[in-house]
Amino acid sequence: MGRILSSVRLKEDMLNTLKADFPLWDFKYVSRKDITDADREEAEVYVTYGGDITSQDVLAFKKLKWLMVMSAGVDDVPLNELKHVPVTNATGIHRIQMTEYTLGLILNHYKNFTQLNKDQENKFWRKNAKTEEIYGKEVHILGTGSIGTRLAEAFNVLGLKTAGYNTNGREVAPFQETYPLSNLKETIHQADILINILPGTKETEYLLTAGHFKKMKDTSVFINIGRGNIMSDEEIIEVLRNQYISHMILDVFNTEPLPEDHPFYQLGNITITPHASSKTDQYLERAFSIFRENLKAFDEGAEMINQVSHDKGY
Amino acid sequence: MGRILSSVRLKEDMLNTLKADFPLWDFKYVSRKDITDADREEAEVYVTYGGDITSQDVLAFKKLKWLMVMSAGVDDVPLNELKHVPVTNATGIHRIQMTEYTLGLILNHYKNFTQLNKDQENKFWRKNAKTEEIYGKEVHILGTGSIGTRLAEAFNVLGLKTAGYNTNGREVAPFQETYPLSNLKETIHQADILINILPGTKETEYLLTAGHFKKMKDTSVFINIGRGNIMSDEEIIEVLRNQYISHMILDVFNTEPLPEDHPFYQLGNITITPHASSKTDQYLERAFSIFRENLKAFDEGAEMINQVSHDKGY
Repeated sequence: MGRILSSVRLKEDMLNTLKADFPLWDFKYVSRKDITDADREEAEVYVTYGGDITSQDVLAFKKLKWLMVMSAGVDDVPLNELKHVPVTNATGIHRIQMTEYTLGLILNHYKNFTQLNKDQENKFWRKNAKTEEIYGKEVHILGTGSIGTRLAEAFNVLGLKTAGYNTNGREVAPFQETYPLSNLKETIHQADILINILPGTKETEYLLTAGHFKKMKDTSVFINIGRGNIMSDEEIIEVLRNQYISHMILDVFNTEPLPEDHPFYQLGNITITPHASSKTDQYLERAFSIFRENLKAFDEGAEMINQVSHDKGY
Repeated sequence: MGRILSSVRLKEDMLNTLKADFPLWDFKYVSRKDITDADREEAEVYVTYGGDITSQDVLAFKKLKWLMVMSAGVDDVPLNELKHVPVTNATGIHRIQMTEYTLGLILNHYKNFTQLNKDQENKFWRKNAKTEEIYGKEVHILGTGSIGTRLAEAFNVLGLKTAGYNTNGREVAPFQETYPLSNLKETIHQADILINILPGTKETEYLLTAGHFKKMKDTSVFINIGRGNIMSDEEIIEVLRNQYISHMILDVFNTEPLPEDHPFYQLGNITITPHASSKTDQYLERAFSIFRENLKAFDEGAEMINQVSHDKGY
């Protein structure tokens, strides 16, 4: 009987599914802070959200045959030390909730709901309140994967022009335009809205600089739901203090949780949310269904879905 | 030369367009509070947002040949006294902005942005903030016209189930289901989200009652961007105090502006916005383009678009 070690707590019905469909596997949950090397030594499969397996830990996983990361980002997984086993992630399960969250953030911004909500608290009727349309605006999305394409579908229906960026600029439906990331400085001036959903890799670290935002319209808005380290805090502050663009909406940060004395909290043209774009009740269920599908493939010696490239890092 | 009287202030470029394209018409702007019977006597065409022409005023419009209402609702226009002239409105110019506003309000609610915004003010990082998906929910829309169909398109793309209601239940694309309004009590229990965009007419006045909401899921949400008088304040308060449903988002009210001592402001499960769903910078331009198109048709003796039925009231 093989041992599945998991620092992800599964629900009762999921455990029952595993027992019924995979009787040759023994599932053991241990909270991330309580996992010992003895646990690691027994594990043939390790299920984790990431962030709880160091290069050192890998040595203790003597029987490991597969690592299942129940999130999309694997930037906190020591891929170099794990080249001997397949690593799979939960890419694709975020597209629905992250599209809703991002669209909501954007509409919230342009429709001034934060102001209208304060008006309600103050029992104030803002006569002739006027809001801005997103219709006709041009949205540029860094990342043309599962989330980016769903976002583009929604924006297309709402009458925005959509452009996507990927490594080589290959066309991806339903983006109206696609550009190579290396071209960013030449095309970014067209964007009214810039969205980052790139994974955290060596290539994307500090990819965006104040120089990019200097080229953008001063009315434009940047939304980051990808990884905080796409840009340094210092450059974000430079952009916002000098109002190179009108507003940033950040759900991810170089330091999370964002400490309460962080200078971002002093800025007026920023919206801060706590890395929540993908967090809904449906998250675990969707991640589990990928794990279950892959466990079946693993047993059958078939190809697993969502395999991470150890080199590319996503 | 014919006189166009307008209580709507047009922009410079619009006035230039009128002069250039319609040299036989003379355009006179007078603010609604300054209009005199002398102004009315001269007018062959009157351009108004509505609300500034009483049954008494109609008598003074001795030469009136056409009334152009630059909004969608004509519930504050004395249609019975105006049966001798065509009345046209600006239906169709609200679909873009009202769809964005409504979608934004809904996402704002389910994604808890009001809470997350307060967290930002308090420099508080809400760990494990979780939000609700609208994906898979069922949305029922009262009104299958220009706004309702655009809303349904957006909801379809986002993975919601859409049902529309109209007078006779005729099928309207892209609604997945359509029901007759008279059936509301039999179908409303299926809705997670109920949206009212019906015009204000004798038939829609107080159409919704607390009894309807008693039949709904207690988790459901009601959004009113149509007319406030679809329901009495007393019944709204009954629904919200007893939590027949989870939340109401109201942009229109029986009394506008909503007075600051209104009991709605004391309720926790209500979002109040100031009749702003259609108000963007593009409004006047779109209304003007309908007026211009109709002025051309009027001159040529052709059929004007957006003619209001004096009997139906929309």
